Amino acid sequence: MLEEIFAPQSVAIVGASPEPTRLGHSVLKNIVQHGFQGRIYPIHPSAQEVLDLSAYASVLDVPDSVDLAVIVIPAKYVLDVIDQCGQKGIRGLIVISAGFKEVGGHGKELERQLLAKVQHYGMRMVGPNCLGVIDTISRLNASFAALMPDDGEIAFMSQSGALCTATLDWSKTQGIGFSRFVSLGNKSDVDEVALLRAWNADPHSKVILAYLEGISNGPAFIAAAREVTKNTPVVALKSGTTVAGTRAASSHTGSLAGSESAYEAAFAQSGILRARTMGELFDLAMAFSYQPLITGNRVAIVTNAGGPGIIATDAIERSGALKMAEFSPQTIECLKKHLPASANFYNPIDVIGDARSDRYEAAIEAALADPGVDGAVVLFTPQAISDTEQTALVISDLAAKHNKPVVTSFMGAYSIGSALELLNQRRIPNYQFPERAVQALAAMAHHRDWRQQPTPEYATFDVDRDRVRKLFEKVRESRRVELGELEAREVIEAYGMRLPQSRLARTPDEAAQIAAEIGFPVVMKISSPDILHKSDIGGVKVGVSDTTAARDIFELIEYRARKYSPDASIWGVLVQEMVRKGREMLVGIKRDPQFGPLIAVGMGGIYVEVLRDVAFRLAPVSRQEVAEQIRSIKTFPLLRGVRGEQPADIAAAEEVVLRVSQLVTDFPEIVEMDINPLVVHNQGEGAIVLDARIILA
Amino acid sequence: MLEEIFAPQSVAIVGASPEPTRLGHSVLKNIVQHGFQGRIYPIHPSAQEVLDLSAYASVLDVPDSVDLAVIVIPAKYVLDVIDQCGQKGIRGLIVISAGFKEVGGHGKELERQLLAKVQHYGMRMVGPNCLGVIDTISRLNASFAALMPDDGEIAFMSQSGALCTATLDWSKTQGIGFSRFVSLGNKSDVDEVALLRAWNADPHSKVILAYLEGISNGPAFIAAAREVTKNTPVVALKSGTTVAGTRAASSHTGSLAGSESAYEAAFAQSGILRARTMGELFDLAMAFSYQPLITGNRVAIVTNAGGPGIIATDAIERSGALKMAEFSPQTIECLKKHLPASANFYNPIDVIGDARSDRYEAAIEAALADPGVDGAVVLFTPQAISDTEQTALVISDLAAKHNKPVVTSFMGAYSIGSALELLNQRRIPNYQFPERAVQALAAMAHHRDWRQQPTPEYATFDVDRDRVRKLFEKVRESRRVELGELEAREVIEAYGMRLPQSRLARTPDEAAQIAAEIGFPVVMKISSPDILHKSDIGGVKVGVSDTTAARDIFELIEYRARKYSPDASIWGVLVQEMVRKGREMLVGIKRDPQFGPLIAVGMGGIYVEVLRDVAFRLAPVSRQEVAEQIRSIKTFPLLRGVRGEQPADIAAAEEVVLRVSQLVTDFPEIVEMDINPLVVHNQGEGAIVLDARIILA
Repeated sequence: MLEEIFAPQSVAIVGASPEPTRLGHSVLKNIVQHGFQGRIYPIHPSAQEVLDLSAYASVLDVPDSVDLAVIVIPAKYVLDVIDQCGQKGIRGLIVISAGFKEVGGHGKELERQLLAKVQHYGMRMVGPNCLGVIDTISRLNASFAALMPDDGEIAFMSQSGALCTATLDWSKTQGIGFSRFVSLGNKSDVDEVALLRAWNADPHSKVILAYLEGISNGPAFIAAAREVTKNTPVVALKSGTTVAGTRAASSHTGSLAGSESAYEAAFAQSGILRARTMGELFDLAMAFSYQPLITGNRVAIVTNAGGPGIIATDAIERSGALKMAEFSPQTIECLKKHLPASANFYNPIDVIGDARSDRYEAAIEAALADPGVDGAVVLFTPQAISDTEQTALVISDLAAKHNKPVVTSFMGAYSIGSALELLNQRRIPNYQFPERAVQALAAMAHHRDWRQQPTPEYATFDVDRDRVRKLFEKVRESRRVELGELEAREVIEAYGMRLPQSRLARTPDEAAQIAAEIGFPVVMKISSPDILHKSDIGGVKVGVSDTTAARDIFELIEYRARKYSPDASIWGVLVQEMVRKGREMLVGIKRDPQFGPLIAVGMGGIYVEVLRDVAFRLAPVSRQEVAEQIRSIKTFPLLRGVRGEQPADIAAAEEVVLRVSQLVTDFPEIVEMDINPLVVHNQGEGAIVLDARIILA
Repeated sequence: MLEEIFAPQSVAIVGASPEPTRLGHSVLKNIVQHGFQGRIYPIHPSAQEVLDLSAYASVLDVPDSVDLAVIVIPAKYVLDVIDQCGQKGIRGLIVISAGFKEVGGHGKELERQLLAKVQHYGMRMVGPNCLGVIDTISRLNASFAALMPDDGEIAFMSQSGALCTATLDWSKTQGIGFSRFVSLGNKSDVDEVALLRAWNADPHSKVILAYLEGISNGPAFIAAAREVTKNTPVVALKSGTTVAGTRAASSHTGSLAGSESAYEAAFAQSGILRARTMGELFDLAMAFSYQPLITGNRVAIVTNAGGPGIIATDAIERSGALKMAEFSPQTIECLKKHLPASANFYNPIDVIGDARSDRYEAAIEAALADPGVDGAVVLFTPQAISDTEQTALVISDLAAKHNKPVVTSFMGAYSIGSALELLNQRRIPNYQFPERAVQALAAMAHHRDWRQQPTPEYATFDVDRDRVRKLFEKVRESRRVELGELEAREVIEAYGMRLPQSRLARTPDEAAQIAAEIGFPVVMKISSPDILHKSDIGGVKVGVSDTTAARDIFELIEYRARKYSPDASIWGVLVQEMVRKGREMLVGIKRDPQFGPLIAVGMGGIYVEVLRDVAFRLAPVSRQEVAEQIRSIKTFPLLRGVRGEQPADIAAAEEVVLRVSQLVTDFPEIVEMDINPLVVHNQGEGAIVLDARIILA
């Protein structure tokens, strides 16, 4: 829970200056004036008192124990102070000082030493190069922010200090409050993973918001996020996603930005809701922190105007996560009893422009009481006759009574100011436009779906790991990174994936015999380490149909090889099973520097090359994730069968992906791998790897 | 210009009640109190005076001429009043009264009669069932809106009266003003087309906003919009797009909502910018009404914080319309001279958190002076040292000086209120979050691209229209709607598209002779009006390779036809050219009830069936539109050639689309048509229609 950072009993402020223009002064003042109840010790080389508190020359001089030190001194003095903190037994650090990794060169080295000391003393540190930490539960404002946020149930972390100040500034007029508020800075020690873990099931936080420019440790992030999101929704805005954006990220924080596909996969696989804009981040935060989680996807709309009702209906249909509720006959009966004849009694309920709060009350009560309704969007446009504040009160009372989420869009501003305040006080999320209200509710439904997903099942197949390990050793010894065709076959075989049968013939008779054993027709290929483009020299023949042909082709291929590559060493001719046609897929991996192996799945050939119809997941993948991954490609209908075709053996394709996942998890040295094509036969008939390429680090 | 509505010299208010709770009273009060300079005549059956103005029992009693009548009386009295207005020579009407089409049944009939009278007298009418009309130029507020909008250069029309009131209410606190503000109501006479025409090149309106639920006359709308958008940007929010949304639209206004693809095509082909949300509608309005149009797509970002800079960079890259400007060496030199060493001198320019307005000034000046910069996004997060208002002033001064569009995102609210007011006064569009600022600038770039497009060229081919007309007559006489195969062939041929050669053989010898003339191999098919599924009875044979085979196949096919369909009348056997393989396309049309023929183009087979990779345009299409249409399908690379293939004859495919466009424009009775497949051969080798289906109304 990082108590030493968020709820210390005593705090020392190193660099607490009596000079009001200094940052250290601002930090001390923030701690003193916002109600922190613990002991406060200004540390200053010479001052006797700062802000009426006794000051000390060093933390070592403080007569009592200290839990947290906030450090606001030039970078070059920080290391010594850390030693003193260590000796003093201080457990928590917030290093506001800049001049570390972000300045490059010497700063990078300084930060390395800083972290080493922090770890040596077993401390936890936020920063360096940050705005600080605010906790409204312990009333600790250990930052140089100009404002103290209102109380609330949103935990917020940001990799950008400026976004922290902008967010605070904005939140004050919106009446949006926070439980914890952390500027991550260079996140040398405490990073997004540590905070996710610390805030897991935090009773004071109903939602966690994160603004991230890069993630330090992908697998740890996923593991932490998976756990947390089963209790608390996490909404993240990840910037630096596009090419130019990534460039800016590198120069800004020096953090290595991961590829966009890896982030998409990581967020999807760990249940993180991804906000596309700053606006969305806070739209979702409001819904999650104010309202109960939606328990289904059926939404009622209540409006006093047709236009906004249509806009909200459109947004619900487009959301993918919600649908329009269908009312029970009782509900419609009840609406007819309480609303004028010109109203619309079906969803969206239109209470008509001359509605006062009593009509809103009747309509919302009827809708929320319907067991076929899981949540409501209430729309309001100010009309001459409207009793706007009373309408706001009625909405909040009914929302509380029914314990179903209600979001509103009171459109306008001029004549509805006090109603907006009321809604906010009574924790009804209000949005300027109907679409945003719907989007927030849709995010709730997404989160609920995620929480209800069963525990993922991971498959572990019985494979020959040793054989692959030895093979990789051999490849490394020969100072190669790419495996040859036969080596790749061996790996595929060791991990239990089917390959076409294939044996080397050294004579025409042997070729005929092998071909007869495999069964006709067969494919024959020259086998030589020196001939790369076998087809170009006529060294490949498909559809060899009998023993006579097999003998002839052996001689022909051998003749051509010797003729066109006189210096090549010829091992013989490979006789291979000729694989029946089937649907071709690509299964590949590419190791992402931050998240590890990213598995790509798509239909082979032009579907991948031209349409780029590929779905990504990070390994290891669960059975459910693979099933979902394959079904998420646009060309999935080709596997299910089109134009009267039989369905393909999708289960066999899934198994190949799971085996590849196991392989690349077992062997982190695999940086790239392509199975292309994987030929998938009809249901029950399996899938077979026609070609594989494996590249080691 | 609809002067009679927007700028009358005199107005009569029919139903101007002395009773303050009546709508007619509100309307009169609005006209009186907001500065309208013309004569005002309250019309009331008994009152002598209303609001200190002499009242008259009827418009006929008014001693002077009347230009505009605003009608606020029960529906049943409206027709008589219209007659009086007609006799009085009144040219403009605003009918606020409800009880017409929107209530169905009798109301529908009443509206029909109303429109007939309006047209009979040569009047123009807004409404019925509307909130009214506001014009801030003539200071006429002929509405029952509770507010008068601020002056501004945005012309606004809305099919929803409630959205009008909500918009007015909201605009008052945003400082956003309007030139014209129209509630369309049932838009019986004056509709979106009439307003577009009226507002074309209106010197008082820099942008036109429209909220539409349906469009009355698709082709007229496109024609008007095409003209207007070359002068003035039009931003439209069209709701009722999804299935459920459409249902709500029908029940709300009784307007027939067109299909989503038709709207997409109509907006794209007429240069209308489509807003997806209410928020976007006003985001764009602000940019267009406040700033000069962007003249290129290269954008500079100036920020005092890295995070928002990255967010904006991402948004620019994602926009599709903008790109990050690259600064000249002089600009970078200049930035280095004026900014501290820790600043970022490349795009995005980071003036660092401790920047005051002088640094913003230096950075923006340098960026806007660079000829490689077409516009700027300025981001600001409030910091302790910031001089926020001065920064706002500096930005607006430099924007005015350079005449390049500048948009801002001052993030926050609490400490930046007066700066936001300043920005608004000085016509700098400010957005709460950076993404929205970028989106507004991107819309500008889109609009500029549209305005720079050359005049569209329409192709008119020399075709045999008469032959098709006669054929259609024959089909109608036989009481069919679907054309038979030979009939469809005839239409395709008459419009100059290539078909495989095909002739009817009545004997085996004739078949052999025709086949020899066409050239082997050929396809042979049973020809019978009674056999629909020819393949199922073995009535089709491909690859017939010589005269002997042609004779044999004739007998075989005839034998099978007689055996399996003993009652069928057999015309003979069709001998057809066997078309070489090529890339298969689909070219189809479906007549949209509002916009007319919607042409679909896609790659044939599973690309259309499974991937639904189709692009739509409305006929008639210009050469440029067809070129763009074909290039906009995702599978277009297949036509360009993949994996070393030759490019296909794209020009030939384009010509087929143009000929189809001409055909369906010439014959409105064609409601559906499919050319599937169109076989497109390699470049220079043409395209050939293999199968066509045509359905008449």
